[in-house]
Amino acid sequence: MAVREILVIGIGPGDPDQITVAAVAALNRVDVFFVVDKGAAKSGLLDVRDEILRRHVRDQDRFRVVEIADPPRERRPDGADAYTGVVADWHAARADRFADAIAGELAEDGVGAFLVWGDPALYDSTLRVIDRILAGGRVEFGYSVIAGVTSVHALTAAHRIPLNRIGEPIHVTPARRIADGLPDGLDSAVVMLDQGFTAAALDPDLEVFWGAYLSTPDEVLIAGRLGDVAAEITRRRAELREQHGWIMDTYLLRRPTP
Amino acid sequence: MAVREILVIGIGPGDPDQITVAAVAALNRVDVFFVVDKGAAKSGLLDVRDEILRRHVRDQDRFRVVEIADPPRERRPDGADAYTGVVADWHAARADRFADAIAGELAEDGVGAFLVWGDPALYDSTLRVIDRILAGGRVEFGYSVIAGVTSVHALTAAHRIPLNRIGEPIHVTPARRIADGLPDGLDSAVVMLDQGFTAAALDPDLEVFWGAYLSTPDEVLIAGRLGDVAAEITRRRAELREQHGWIMDTYLLRRPTP
Ligand SMILES: C[S@@+](CC[C@H](N)C(=O)[O-])C[C@H]1O[C@@H](n2cnc3c(N)ncnc32)[C@H](O)[C@@H]1O
Ligand SMILES: C[S@@+](CC[C@H](N)C(=O)[O-])C[C@H]1O[C@@H](n2cnc3c(N)ncnc32)[C@H](O)[C@@H]1O
Repeated sequence: MAVREILVIGIGPGDPDQITVAAVAALNRVDVFFVVDKGAAKSGLLDVRDEILRRHVRDQDRFRVVEIADPPRERRPDGADAYTGVVADWHAARADRFADAIAGELAEDGVGAFLVWGDPALYDSTLRVIDRILAGGRVEFGYSVIAGVTSVHALTAAHRIPLNRIGEPIHVTPARRIADGLPDGLDSAVVMLDQGFTAAALDPDLEVFWGAYLSTPDEVLIAGRLGDVAAEITRRRAELREQHGWIMDTYLLRRPTP
Repeated sequence: MAVREILVIGIGPGDPDQITVAAVAALNRVDVFFVVDKGAAKSGLLDVRDEILRRHVRDQDRFRVVEIADPPRERRPDGADAYTGVVADWHAARADRFADAIAGELAEDGVGAFLVWGDPALYDSTLRVIDRILAGGRVEFGYSVIAGVTSVHALTAAHRIPLNRIGEPIHVTPARRIADGLPDGLDSAVVMLDQGFTAAALDPDLEVFWGAYLSTPDEVLIAGRLGDVAAEITRRRAELREQHGWIMDTYLLRRPTP
């Protein structure tokens, strides 16, 4: 019996060559790339995706690209519970659209793919949406996940720093969780998904390693004592966002070595 | 003026093709690969490294491999401070040997490389040792870091799970830090560097996603409620370690969804 196959492929954090050889082999098996249209604002990402297909797929006539319009999503809800609720509704709406696209556009023995920025396990909804599609029962398929390099490791590579202190844990967190400082008992954290530069309000003696547009030609790095560089990061971030129309940035905060 | 260049290259968690296209390009620029001899016990890793060079370097006559014997390291010290002290001494001894090897074996305009399992920022000492060599002043060089896929993402890809709950932090920790349970306020953690299966002693209602020899032909996966699978993981782990002579395993622990 023919069974559709879906590949969830991590494409790395920005450089079209920061994709694995295994992911390139996977790209070359794909009949239909399902692409979520996030609007023109994120056009930097769409360019990278197009360049990856151009550069790494040998037979450019083999595949089709099918766009899936993203359901509308309520932005900036008030609290954490509201946040989770809004996201869950949005995943359900996304699952319906993905199911329609897979059922309508992928042959019963076809190979479809979702390309995910960085690695699919890190702050990305694709795997949750796939679970929902399969639970919904509208369309059946097998699927596998191909790991990628994350923006966290693009940050540490660019700054040439380890993620952990010797023997210490690693903590990666959405920005809203560090609004009151580093969690107790932790001496470092990587901050993602920041709408601004939340760390500007924190202990000026923390060290920061900040990076925007990592692994792209537009990469910008700033590092130093928070008290010395926070104003500069806040200003550069606003300027860059204005100039490019979008920004993606990440940073490591660390208590100073005693 | 000629300046030696050192590349610290992440080679991924086990599959020779789970290396990035950018890392493959870097491999092809290298004159001397510096290889730390970790003893025959870890021969699985050495095989992967050899296969990576065989498979991905076009000109097999271009490079030399120079082995650096690892300094002796005191194992299983008592407390956390002792641990840090022992590790620091060992880094200093390593830095001396690396400096000798670079000064003695790499031409003044040569490109040298260290290949690091997974990604160089994740629980690996190479970057710290390089900082020490440069601080020591015996030999000068420029260096850069090429990010890789980590064993953490090999684990989540194999189990096809996200690393984070929606809006929640991600925590990665050495096993000795979860001996008393998941840290307060966290509902999941990835555990690395376990000498056994520390989680066996924890709350049986936690969910576990365990993986050994991830991304290799020997990969073994076990998942379930800790109370149901802990004994099986402990037993399989001991058997596999016996059979292969070494083991590398990682797992995600997660509080059950309410
Ligand atoms: C929705 S998450 C997706 C993360 C992605 N799955 C990964 O593995 O990197 C988006 C966040 O990742 C970070 N990010 C992703 N790519 C980045 C880049 N090239 N430079 C800086 N930050 C990046 C930013 O913090 C951004 O808010
Ligand atoms: C010294 S750390 C190095 C981690 C590496 N730099 C990385 O990015 O994955 C070694 C630990 O990584 C984990 N590990 C590395 N490779 C693994 C694999 N192929 N399968 C399972 N665990 C692995 C194990 O927890 C092991 O104790």
